[in-house]
Amino acid sequence: MRAINPANGKSFGPEFFCSTRAQLEAMGESAIDAVDFLADAPGAQIAGFLDDYAVRLEGDRAQLSVLAHEETALALVPRLSEVEFNRMTFQLREAANCLRDESWREIARDEKNNMRATLVPLGGAVLCVGPSNFPLAFNGISGGDFCAAIAARNPVIAKAHPGHPNTSARLFAHACAARDGARLPAAALQMFYECAPDDGVALLGHAGVAALGFTGSRASGMRLKAVCDGLGKPASLEMSSVNPVFVASGAAEARAQTIAESWVSSLLLGGGQFCTKPGVLLVSGLKAADRVCARAAELMRAAPSVVLLTDAVRAHLAGSIEDLRRAGVHPICGGRETSPGFRFEPTLMSVDAAQARELRALVMAEAFGPLGVIVCVEDDAQLVDFARALDGQLASTIISDPSDSATRAKLMGILRFKAGRILDEAMPTGVAVSPAMVHGGPFPATGDARFTAVGLPSAAKRFSKALCLDRVR
Amino acid sequence: MRAINPANGKSFGPEFFCSTRAQLEAMGESAIDAVDFLADAPGAQIAGFLDDYAVRLEGDRAQLSVLAHEETALALVPRLSEVEFNRMTFQLREAANCLRDESWREIARDEKNNMRATLVPLGGAVLCVGPSNFPLAFNGISGGDFCAAIAARNPVIAKAHPGHPNTSARLFAHACAARDGARLPAAALQMFYECAPDDGVALLGHAGVAALGFTGSRASGMRLKAVCDGLGKPASLEMSSVNPVFVASGAAEARAQTIAESWVSSLLLGGGQFCTKPGVLLVSGLKAADRVCARAAELMRAAPSVVLLTDAVRAHLAGSIEDLRRAGVHPICGGRETSPGFRFEPTLMSVDAAQARELRALVMAEAFGPLGVIVCVEDDAQLVDFARALDGQLASTIISDPSDSATRAKLMGILRFKAGRILDEAMPTGVAVSPAMVHGGPFPATGDARFTAVGLPSAAKRFSKALCLDRVR
Repeated sequence: MRAINPANGKSFGPEFFCSTRAQLEAMGESAIDAVDFLADAPGAQIAGFLDDYAVRLEGDRAQLSVLAHEETALALVPRLSEVEFNRMTFQLREAANCLRDESWREIARDEKNNMRATLVPLGGAVLCVGPSNFPLAFNGISGGDFCAAIAARNPVIAKAHPGHPNTSARLFAHACAARDGARLPAAALQMFYECAPDDGVALLGHAGVAALGFTGSRASGMRLKAVCDGLGKPASLEMSSVNPVFVASGAAEARAQTIAESWVSSLLLGGGQFCTKPGVLLVSGLKAADRVCARAAELMRAAPSVVLLTDAVRAHLAGSIEDLRRAGVHPICGGRETSPGFRFEPTLMSVDAAQARELRALVMAEAFGPLGVIVCVEDDAQLVDFARALDGQLASTIISDPSDSATRAKLMGILRFKAGRILDEAMPTGVAVSPAMVHGGPFPATGDARFTAVGLPSAAKRFSKALCLDRVR
Repeated sequence: MRAINPANGKSFGPEFFCSTRAQLEAMGESAIDAVDFLADAPGAQIAGFLDDYAVRLEGDRAQLSVLAHEETALALVPRLSEVEFNRMTFQLREAANCLRDESWREIARDEKNNMRATLVPLGGAVLCVGPSNFPLAFNGISGGDFCAAIAARNPVIAKAHPGHPNTSARLFAHACAARDGARLPAAALQMFYECAPDDGVALLGHAGVAALGFTGSRASGMRLKAVCDGLGKPASLEMSSVNPVFVASGAAEARAQTIAESWVSSLLLGGGQFCTKPGVLLVSGLKAADRVCARAAELMRAAPSVVLLTDAVRAHLAGSIEDLRRAGVHPICGGRETSPGFRFEPTLMSVDAAQARELRALVMAEAFGPLGVIVCVEDDAQLVDFARALDGQLASTIISDPSDSATRAKLMGILRFKAGRILDEAMPTGVAVSPAMVHGGPFPATGDARFTAVGLPSAAKRFSKALCLDRVR
């Protein structure tokens, strides 16, 4: 396997090899050796590794960002070299803070009974499988799951995403240098690039692997979930979400233009390849919905083609659009691949309420890329019905005016159980790194609505185990 | 189905009917109606229900305890009427406190970003399936899972255990009176007694059921886990554990007699039907192990037959002993059913290290009832090897003298990843209701090592969902 520049479709850089089952099992075996060291090391030592890693990354900011740009075609400035880069180093430092202040442990003391409850590491590595769309801040070797796993003192085995192997290799080199500088064992951090699916399953079954951190497609996530469920190993799975935006009739009537504008702008961020992309906009009131569609179409037509992350993303997007079209969803603009590389036109489609109800699974299926679907519903009662029928989501936005307060209240009452995050007005694409963030949501958006993948110390809990020391000397 | 008095094997009391699928689905449907009410009610209103429920139970302490005694043959005094009864009412009041102080919500605020994270209810009922062995404090309609589910503001659908339907019905009557007194909706609490297995699965799949709280056998737990995993619904599963006790050589040599005594006494508590029963005692040093065996045998021979909870428990115990015997595990005393009712002799078996390694799955399998197995190992190195090969456990005890400090340290280092609770010296049967308790442990002891089933507010987290209110008005 070699990297491909999505902007021109050409391979570049060195060959990355597929790891054999024996190599993966050796990684699992090695991880066991690092478990006790990480569990017992002074927090400051592991924190020192993370801080030094962040410093080393910052020293290589320009080249790392360019490399990530070449592999993903995501915007170099400000997206990769500033926003995502800073998010990555901030998260590493947050994890270091967690290790220093022990906040991730959630210690509870009971002096009377001479008992103490604390979270501890899992006793094996976390297999961190990162996504295509955040080569830095969600990379298996530098991103959110990595930080959470290390904050809870677990070894990490990262699987580099095939969409950015060179970026991952470069990150890993810095990680290893920082690890060695901090005198952590080599097996604290391991990485591989590719494996046969069955061998990945075997690795999950290895005694040296205690948990999975996965961000990616629903299809892959569901396969891995079944494996982990069978093994009884915890899996943090971020799988899919269309993050619907509900526009109540008053707001739609009063602000059709600006709503269309903020939606399209959020939709196209990162080429429409955010897991929090607001893929579906539900607008109450047919006249207002027409105006939203018209303005959104203007903007989408005026926007340049997007370079998608990989050919697989492009194929999936094209397939999704074809499925929608065949089912009778109305194409408004876009819909075609362009060249060079993995380009695709911004694509807008619309559907009425009756059709959308019938085609719910299709309309509500995540598709990475610059595709937006507007569901034109007749009134707020229909809007509320759509909320009620929703599957689990990462996030959902309500757009409402003071005259919509009854509708807003109904939507809030429903969406609190359907989405990990609810927003008034704001589009869902911005995910602040904060202890008050919930980047999670009910199945099938994630595997478990009780956890968040962003925001320490709570995100570290995913990769921990509860322990009570009961009358221990 | 009618209740059976385990002390004489005779049926008594009214007939309880098997609920049809339509009846169960109607329960799921009804639960949906109670969701918003419970989510939005003042905490004090739900807390008032719990406090009143506790008061009503205390007013009926004598009759409830006698009924539970007739159905389970567990000791009336102090076990049922004092210890377990007080545990039940204490937990109800702890849940009321959680609702008043909102501690279960784990609120995190971020003023700068105008964000707030909070746990919320699940948006559907928790199906609470209680075990046979705690008819009060773990009953699906009054026990730990019930308290946790209500503390997190979820409706409850309880399945009464067939071992104590009359106790459950009487508890439910008090619960309903308190519920009506507090003006909670009827569907906040529902209960059924029996159903076809497929209909139970259908109920789990109903949109009105959001989670499962199960305490029971590994076989049933694994079936229900597969169902919930497939549905993507959270399940709290407490399944099985032998809670091994590790006796290091110095302590074994110095204190063989007293170790045998405290082990046998813990083992026989509640007829050996505690989920925290120390079913396996591993003793380092063959001479000391012989002395432990001899003293334990004396005590077991002197102890009266135990009345088991149900005929199924007796059949399972007899089968386990037969399996061990056939495999070559040495029977020391007991092993026979006695009469009247579901009686069984206290039974001691022993096995050497080589055999125990070979028969690990058999020796380490939970069996309710007065069965204890002593594993006689040659030295502390073997003891440590057994710890390393252990499956997930609820609890594990280390018995050591100052001369055993190196062995103790090794065992602690291993057991912290294997058990939800570690004890020095103390037998694992006492499970304090405390925020510092962890009654949980790695799979297959439970379904998820990150949670505890005892100790509020943390136990409530099992039945909650994370929600971020992001720039919400």
